[in-house]
Amino acid sequence: MYITMIDGPDLASHLSHLRSLIEARLNFDSQLSHDCPRQLLDSIRYSLLAPGKRIRPCLAMLACEACGGDPKDALPAASALEMIHCYSLIHDDLPAMDDDDLRRGRPTNHIQFNEATAILAGDGLLTLAFESLAKEISDPQVAVACIADLASAAGAEGMVGGQQADLEAEDAAHISLEELEAIHRRKTGRLLTAPLLMGGRLAGANGETLNNLKIYGESVGLAFQIADDLLDVVGDSSKMGKNVQKDADHGKSTYPALLGVEESRKRANLLIEQACEAIANFGERGNHLAALAKYIVERDH
Amino acid sequence: MYITMIDGPDLASHLSHLRSLIEARLNFDSQLSHDCPRQLLDSIRYSLLAPGKRIRPCLAMLACEACGGDPKDALPAASALEMIHCYSLIHDDLPAMDDDDLRRGRPTNHIQFNEATAILAGDGLLTLAFESLAKEISDPQVAVACIADLASAAGAEGMVGGQQADLEAEDAAHISLEELEAIHRRKTGRLLTAPLLMGGRLAGANGETLNNLKIYGESVGLAFQIADDLLDVVGDSSKMGKNVQKDADHGKSTYPALLGVEESRKRANLLIEQACEAIANFGERGNHLAALAKYIVERDH
Repeated sequence: MYITMIDGPDLASHLSHLRSLIEARLNFDSQLSHDCPRQLLDSIRYSLLAPGKRIRPCLAMLACEACGGDPKDALPAASALEMIHCYSLIHDDLPAMDDDDLRRGRPTNHIQFNEATAILAGDGLLTLAFESLAKEISDPQVAVACIADLASAAGAEGMVGGQQADLEAEDAAHISLEELEAIHRRKTGRLLTAPLLMGGRLAGANGETLNNLKIYGESVGLAFQIADDLLDVVGDSSKMGKNVQKDADHGKSTYPALLGVEESRKRANLLIEQACEAIANFGERGNHLAALAKYIVERDH
Repeated sequence: MYITMIDGPDLASHLSHLRSLIEARLNFDSQLSHDCPRQLLDSIRYSLLAPGKRIRPCLAMLACEACGGDPKDALPAASALEMIHCYSLIHDDLPAMDDDDLRRGRPTNHIQFNEATAILAGDGLLTLAFESLAKEISDPQVAVACIADLASAAGAEGMVGGQQADLEAEDAAHISLEELEAIHRRKTGRLLTAPLLMGGRLAGANGETLNNLKIYGESVGLAFQIADDLLDVVGDSSKMGKNVQKDADHGKSTYPALLGVEESRKRANLLIEQACEAIANFGERGNHLAALAKYIVERDH
């Protein structure tokens, strides 16, 4: 219901405003000018400042806003989240991992620079994410909680573990829906839930509110993955900036492959309903979060 | 003077005691049992629990002791430091980096497992280091300061930047002594200074004391590198667990190559004197730190 209360242009212009704040912050945070080798800095900034949807940073800022804070208060979390996301893309694209030459229409980091530099740029970004959280969040208790959220979501029990499980699953002939969901929960879900918690903490949210944000994040995270799989089947390569059908061609398990296109769509929509329900008692302040959830399943790139 | 007050066995037995505490802690901290893919966990533990000197963790515990704290209070820092050191070894050994098959007589991580798993094990350890600092240091202000110390020492302006500069220097025909020192200060020096600061902070040290520990750390860090270069020229391969003369064979710039063996030895000894001077006013509590500094230049493996 409240989804329809926000019209597209309103959300779009709000996100566009947040994105400009985020990009200015990323530009600032990545100016490691005085003691970083030039090529490493170029490589870090090549990937970090590349055009992107900035979904994780936007989620952190919208969560902060939904809890009554100023979205700008979430900028340290927003920046750190994008650094982690960006490092994971650089490492995932490496020859030993997914071996991709192209990302969003541009050469991947190891193609543009070289493999050693790409590995180090990823390591540098991962480290910088925690350094900036430690240095830029003024309340030490909030800083420590945000660092724990982010590390737990990004580490061996979260995103890194999900990538490992995903690589192992590629070698398996067939995986079940449960196994697929477990991979996605770790590989993408945890890092879509962390922004909600971090943004809420930076607005001083209490435990119950953080829990509602967590439910929203988990539901949106899974819906996001289903939407991604659907785009791979029915997407338009010119809008995606990469070859579509790549997953299917590689025999990779996807929601459409396991459930069919229609059932996958239904599942994504149900998850979005659950997400919106979790934040229903936020009232009007949660409108942008609700609209963003809807946007995630409706986007065409 | 106070170096000779500590006899070898006293330091050796104290370090051996600290190492057993550290190894128990590393074993505990790396038990990511409930949601980490088995092979990733095996890979993380293969490298983290491999026999090692644990110099960085020992430095943190000795610094804590030198400032009047219980060395055990520094265990969260000790564990995180070893995780960072360990991840850096895994990534440095990769084919795209130093391309080493053997470390301390055992197959390197990517040889034992595979390249993708080694990259992810490194990423997982790097992330776990910050997670454990955030979760295991009870005072949030001390936790945040330790996280900032460690990230700054390990990141693009520290260790990661040093590795990049080192790889770039390998392509250069000749580098100066100043360039060599700048590389080592970042590549190994910063991560040998961080333990001193972190250990001091965990004992509640004031700014002046932290500054003295920093001077000690910087001097010992450079001396450590000179000693490593010397071992490469004059070391015994059976004790080193790796091929000696490797750096020289690769035409890599080293202290002995730039200064000669005798001058390098002198320089290392002078640095150790400076280190001991910086902690002279710690009195007896600094004896172990002083003895460790001496051990670093006298070790034969």
